[in-house]
Amino acid sequence: MTDAATLADRVQSGDLRLYELEAHADAETAATARRLILERETDAELETVGSYSFDAGQAADANIENGIGGAQLPMGVAGPVRINGGAADGEFYLPMATTEGALVASVNRGLSTIDAAGGATARVTDSGMTRAPVFRVEDVAEAEHVIDWVNANLEALKAAAESTTSHGELLDIDPSVVGDNVYLRFVYDTKDAMGMNMATIATREAATVVEAETPAELVALSGNLCSDKKPAAVNAIKGRGRTVTADVCIDRELVEERLNTTPEAMAEGNTRKNLVGSAKAVSLGFNAHAANTVAAMFLATGQDAAQVVEGSNAITTMDVREDGLYASISFASLEVGTVGGGTKLPTQQEALNVLGLAGSGDPPGKNADALAEVIAVGALAGELSLVAAFCSRHLASAHEELGR
Amino acid sequence: MTDAATLADRVQSGDLRLYELEAHADAETAATARRLILERETDAELETVGSYSFDAGQAADANIENGIGGAQLPMGVAGPVRINGGAADGEFYLPMATTEGALVASVNRGLSTIDAAGGATARVTDSGMTRAPVFRVEDVAEAEHVIDWVNANLEALKAAAESTTSHGELLDIDPSVVGDNVYLRFVYDTKDAMGMNMATIATREAATVVEAETPAELVALSGNLCSDKKPAAVNAIKGRGRTVTADVCIDRELVEERLNTTPEAMAEGNTRKNLVGSAKAVSLGFNAHAANTVAAMFLATGQDAAQVVEGSNAITTMDVREDGLYASISFASLEVGTVGGGTKLPTQQEALNVLGLAGSGDPPGKNADALAEVIAVGALAGELSLVAAFCSRHLASAHEELGR
Amino acid sequence: MTDAATLADRVQSGDLRLYELEAHADAETAATARRLILERETDAELETVGSYSFDAGQAADANIENGIGGAQLPMGVAGPVRINGGAADGEFYLPMATTEGALVASVNRGLSTIDAAGGATARVTDSGMTRAPVFRVEDVAEAEHVIDWVNANLEALKAAAESTTSHGELLDIDPSVVGDNVYLRFVYDTKDAMGMNMATIATREAATVVEAETPAELVALSGNLCSDKKPAAVNAIKGRGRTVTADVCIDRELVEERLNTTPEAMAEGNTRKNLVGSAKAVSLGFNAHAANTVAAMFLATGQDAAQVVEGSNAITTMDVREDGLYASISFASLEVGTVGGGTKLPTQQEALNVLGLAGSGDPPGKNADALAEVIAVGALAGELSLVAAFCSRHLASAHEELGR
Amino acid sequence: MTDAATLADRVQSGDLRLYELEAHADAETAATARRLILERETDAELETVGSYSFDAGQAADANIENGIGGAQLPMGVAGPVRINGGAADGEFYLPMATTEGALVASVNRGLSTIDAAGGATARVTDSGMTRAPVFRVEDVAEAEHVIDWVNANLEALKAAAESTTSHGELLDIDPSVVGDNVYLRFVYDTKDAMGMNMATIATREAATVVEAETPAELVALSGNLCSDKKPAAVNAIKGRGRTVTADVCIDRELVEERLNTTPEAMAEGNTRKNLVGSAKAVSLGFNAHAANTVAAMFLATGQDAAQVVEGSNAITTMDVREDGLYASISFASLEVGTVGGGTKLPTQQEALNVLGLAGSGDPPGKNADALAEVIAVGALAGELSLVAAFCSRHLASAHEELGR
Repeated sequence: MTDAATLADRVQSGDLRLYELEAHADAETAATARRLILERETDAELETVGSYSFDAGQAADANIENGIGGAQLPMGVAGPVRINGGAADGEFYLPMATTEGALVASVNRGLSTIDAAGGATARVTDSGMTRAPVFRVEDVAEAEHVIDWVNANLEALKAAAESTTSHGELLDIDPSVVGDNVYLRFVYDTKDAMGMNMATIATREAATVVEAETPAELVALSGNLCSDKKPAAVNAIKGRGRTVTADVCIDRELVEERLNTTPEAMAEGNTRKNLVGSAKAVSLGFNAHAANTVAAMFLATGQDAAQVVEGSNAITTMDVREDGLYASISFASLEVGTVGGGTKLPTQQEALNVLGLAGSGDPPGKNADALAEVIAVGALAGELSLVAAFCSRHLASAHEELGR
Repeated sequence: MTDAATLADRVQSGDLRLYELEAHADAETAATARRLILERETDAELETVGSYSFDAGQAADANIENGIGGAQLPMGVAGPVRINGGAADGEFYLPMATTEGALVASVNRGLSTIDAAGGATARVTDSGMTRAPVFRVEDVAEAEHVIDWVNANLEALKAAAESTTSHGELLDIDPSVVGDNVYLRFVYDTKDAMGMNMATIATREAATVVEAETPAELVALSGNLCSDKKPAAVNAIKGRGRTVTADVCIDRELVEERLNTTPEAMAEGNTRKNLVGSAKAVSLGFNAHAANTVAAMFLATGQDAAQVVEGSNAITTMDVREDGLYASISFASLEVGTVGGGTKLPTQQEALNVLGLAGSGDPPGKNADALAEVIAVGALAGELSLVAAFCSRHLASAHEELGR
Repeated sequence: MTDAATLADRVQSGDLRLYELEAHADAETAATARRLILERETDAELETVGSYSFDAGQAADANIENGIGGAQLPMGVAGPVRINGGAADGEFYLPMATTEGALVASVNRGLSTIDAAGGATARVTDSGMTRAPVFRVEDVAEAEHVIDWVNANLEALKAAAESTTSHGELLDIDPSVVGDNVYLRFVYDTKDAMGMNMATIATREAATVVEAETPAELVALSGNLCSDKKPAAVNAIKGRGRTVTADVCIDRELVEERLNTTPEAMAEGNTRKNLVGSAKAVSLGFNAHAANTVAAMFLATGQDAAQVVEGSNAITTMDVREDGLYASISFASLEVGTVGGGTKLPTQQEALNVLGLAGSGDPPGKNADALAEVIAVGALAGELSLVAAFCSRHLASAHEELGR
Repeated sequence: MTDAATLADRVQSGDLRLYELEAHADAETAATARRLILERETDAELETVGSYSFDAGQAADANIENGIGGAQLPMGVAGPVRINGGAADGEFYLPMATTEGALVASVNRGLSTIDAAGGATARVTDSGMTRAPVFRVEDVAEAEHVIDWVNANLEALKAAAESTTSHGELLDIDPSVVGDNVYLRFVYDTKDAMGMNMATIATREAATVVEAETPAELVALSGNLCSDKKPAAVNAIKGRGRTVTADVCIDRELVEERLNTTPEAMAEGNTRKNLVGSAKAVSLGFNAHAANTVAAMFLATGQDAAQVVEGSNAITTMDVREDGLYASISFASLEVGTVGGGTKLPTQQEALNVLGLAGSGDPPGKNADALAEVIAVGALAGELSLVAAFCSRHLASAHEELGR
């Protein structure tokens, strides 16, 4: 601890910068020194922040700079639930990290209903991580020339991009023109990695070729048509990460017993709230609270929390069928990985092991597909539970009176 | 530990449900039992999940059901930075919890530049937490009648709503009609609480009055015009939580020294990427990566992670001024609180203390206002740093050649 | 004609500019001269363009520059239909000008069904024409100051704005801040005029006061938050022109006889196409073809054709009720007038007379309200007819098999 | 006229329906009879509506039902302007039909400036007419199966679709899944036709094959992912009709002389209004008034007025370059044709002849491409003129003071 105190003194005297400590001590000591500084300069005591289970050095390498310790969120579990997925096949417990009371209970109730109905179906219907650099050209005539060149040289660009990665594959390059801006949206198969870094590095290499062979000048490796961590229609329409749907049919009796309402009330509530209400709000989210489940499972399994923004973009449907209720949720751009990023941290790795989805899948990409399917089922459960909650009191009785 | 093992056995034998454990043991034992069950039924070992610093019982009361322990994320610190805010006034260190390497370093570089420029200005320009129930009416003639009644009885509805809360104030009720749906968007001043629960409970009371006095029937307490945890234009336009802007003027020399680029290159890059690129992407986010800072500070300070969705809705502008670069970021709907929710958890409380913003402000609301301003400054720093990073290589040299 | 030929010669010899002809001849002769020029310089013969019924001079004063004659579109009529409106009360024939075959027939079939069901209900639920100048300020601290000043001086700004108009009233000023931009959305009651010009002139006067009394500098009288002739959420959410809903209940028997389908099939088709399909398309229009009716009635009655863009922003709902089908359409921003603009042209004036809505209403504003309600009913008819058309073949039989 | 009076009597006595008249008389007489009826039943006199130059019978066949005559709009001309287009190459006069005073003058001023700058560049960068039927499936597993089948049978679907048309070609089928809805977006090359009808008929044939070969059931031939006559992001991102950009570089001196402002003031005004203002308005239109030019040229040349909705979706950029101002406008989904629809009407045909673009191009599609390019240049002129108008007073002087 002497060491940390000395480092703290040196920072406070101006001898060292806050971010230079790792050059003079191990990461744990550096973090301790920073806590000391903060404790001296603010009213904070940082006892629990200083209590963490991950390796400070590994975190400093991969996840954090100016580390001071850890943040802790409560983790709960929901399920089990049977899933008939394209990749996820079997029974799953869902780990969720959240500070919002009632969320895990809500998802758990929904999963229990889904399980009683025979489980959920889920499929990844599209997949691809994107990066879209923006180039400056002289005018639209030059833009046309650049795009023609790109379309004629896809193989060369693929070779350049893939030279930077052992796993990733360039699937497509999708061009757009706005005046003297050319945006090239590169789409990659990044297997079990969420893949942003892989896509960025590969795209940089390909962009260098475009610059060398055409008059286009690179302005930024991301021109916001990717689109990362923004709620953009381009992702809603073209997908990013996994495009995934989960659905279930629930018998009328089960709807009445478990959810205390009727299929008709559920369908009406979903239409008035999730479809018409969202339309009037000019929303990119036609669901009740998909972001809650996405955020909680992202945090538990080491995903990028900022990608909840586009990851939670989802449409929920509920319809009456002859035999009961059909309910679905369709995510456009759920960016997930089971390797890299925060997945290696210890609590996150343990949570992935609860799902049986840590590390690379067989074949590669299968684990990330499965994680997407499981999250979609969790979110479907959350939708069922919340819509049922507000329908049970009001709508159900109204529907009964009407004899529907 | 015997106890936990016994409980685990009972659950596995079907004698108890997973969520019933708290009725038979304290929360910590219940969590231990659930970890045991998961360890038996999956391949996971949950050692680090079982290592947590918060009180399991308090978490079970307020934050989590089916608790199994905690998730840990690395926490770092950026700053200090001077802020001239409407509520935040002085020098601040920003705690950030993230798993994304380079993020804290990026924000830190931006904050250092801002601080060297004399600090950032920040203001909350609008404030209000919302809840928008949807009612069913017979037809639009009845909708008109209901809205007329609401407008004529605002005081009665205010009294009903505020009867449920000691702090909250009903500020406004904003009606919308879509066919036989009437949406009433209730707007509250919830002081230092993020306020969703307060708003929901108060709105339920007022909705009961609407149902009693008009022919409208309540369909759902949230009709998605609130709009919570969805990226909706209604929040971008009318605001939710805090509407807050942070900005800074940076001398040309400072831009060149600290950011290795020029004001012209920054402005051009921002326009091509954050404005035009986002426009082409049909995005609700006209920024580079505001969600990163919002997510990291939300997680560090106990905010609702799912509200990163609308909380990160922001427009970044960068313009050349005579003396250098003007840069700003404007958030439409940053939902934050310094009391309630996850703010009471120990690591989160400690992070709020680093900011000097834990608990109620004086006057009430000032701490949450200040937190919003600090987050906005942090995000501004992230924008400056990222835009500079891609401009430094390409654009700056181009501008130099052009003599601009 | 000599005159026109001489003028044409002078333009072609470079002695006169094409737009200067009205200074040397009456408008009709000027138009003739321009047709001559075009006939000489291109392959066109402009015989029918030269055949028009309006007064060329009046058109040159109010509607057109560089006039060459007229464009002619076929006009048809649909109806009659009974309307129970807030302003439109009685039976109406709807004039429609279009080149799209089947459109009038489709609306006519829908109106006939609505009429058989007892007519439609319609209400204008909000009203106001807007203009939103953008001002430049130093920073957000100054933005806050400017907005505070505006809010404290609403009466003075109202006086300034209303000094420019004998009819218009300033209802509200709604501020927004983005960095160093302050947008003030002025909302006016412009009575029976569509009101853009009135709003622009009044706002210019008020903006002058803002500039004089605060540090804000006017950048543009329209800052695109108005928002005119763009499909913007600000109009969808806050309204512009008339916000109007039309709806109808149609007995099951009538649905089957007139529309050859069932309420269930209509409701399902509407949900899958107009709600879910539009959601997936990230659309601002949740309807089948509202723009068709809006465009055709706008053209017939002298409205601004470019305002079809936001005027057609509408949500269509269809739900099964005990007694049949409930259908509605809700427009957010239908900008219409019965005085000014193109309404004074002869064919347009005649079409307004078919509706009984030419000129100022009693009280002022009632005619424009009524026109909005009639257009909404026409669009509702178009929705019913089109949704029924595709449902009649497929869905109805499916529903019959299911016994629903 | 006797005939018309008799017919009118029979309708009024209930012996005939309004839409049955063409079975008992020629179209002109039928129209006369309807005018008589309207004149008797309303306060209208329909003299000018009864004065029209097109053939009533041809209009009744192709464009209108329940015809009563014609609507007349003033037509003007702007230009000439040189265009360096991919298809439009040379000097063009632009016919515009509008009732909005100042519009033609505004476009004319812009065109004159563009012409003085050497003309505009324009390119169609993408092209394709779409129709997107929605199918109902059992669940997402079946959806996956249907899409797999479609992807494996593109040639068969192409053959089916193209069997219905002599000109059209199926380019692509783009699938989307939302729960139990499968949307297939068919993309066609429809040459010089706008192509909606061609696309609809071809898609119906292909959809029949999908229904026969897979479990998918057709719900509607349009599932709103097309997306026709709605302002949808799917068109903004994937294009519909022609995706086209026009741009120009204008010397600083020319900006000052012709537009009375500076490149810096234009660029600033465009950013604050068209980019940032539109962003804050959550708009799909990042331009000043593109819809005005699109509407006026659509009406003059016989395009579908309701397609102004998505046709006007455009982004305007203005940037300072070393030598002056670069300005551009990029349309995402400009649906135009030079054959079919309203293009055959006499005034519209004459206007197309002014452009030299009536009928089929050589090669097919070239005329429609050229029309798109000309409209884009007209809209660019409108943008320059309007932005200059508000910049000339305020911004220019401010920039001068700053020495920029």
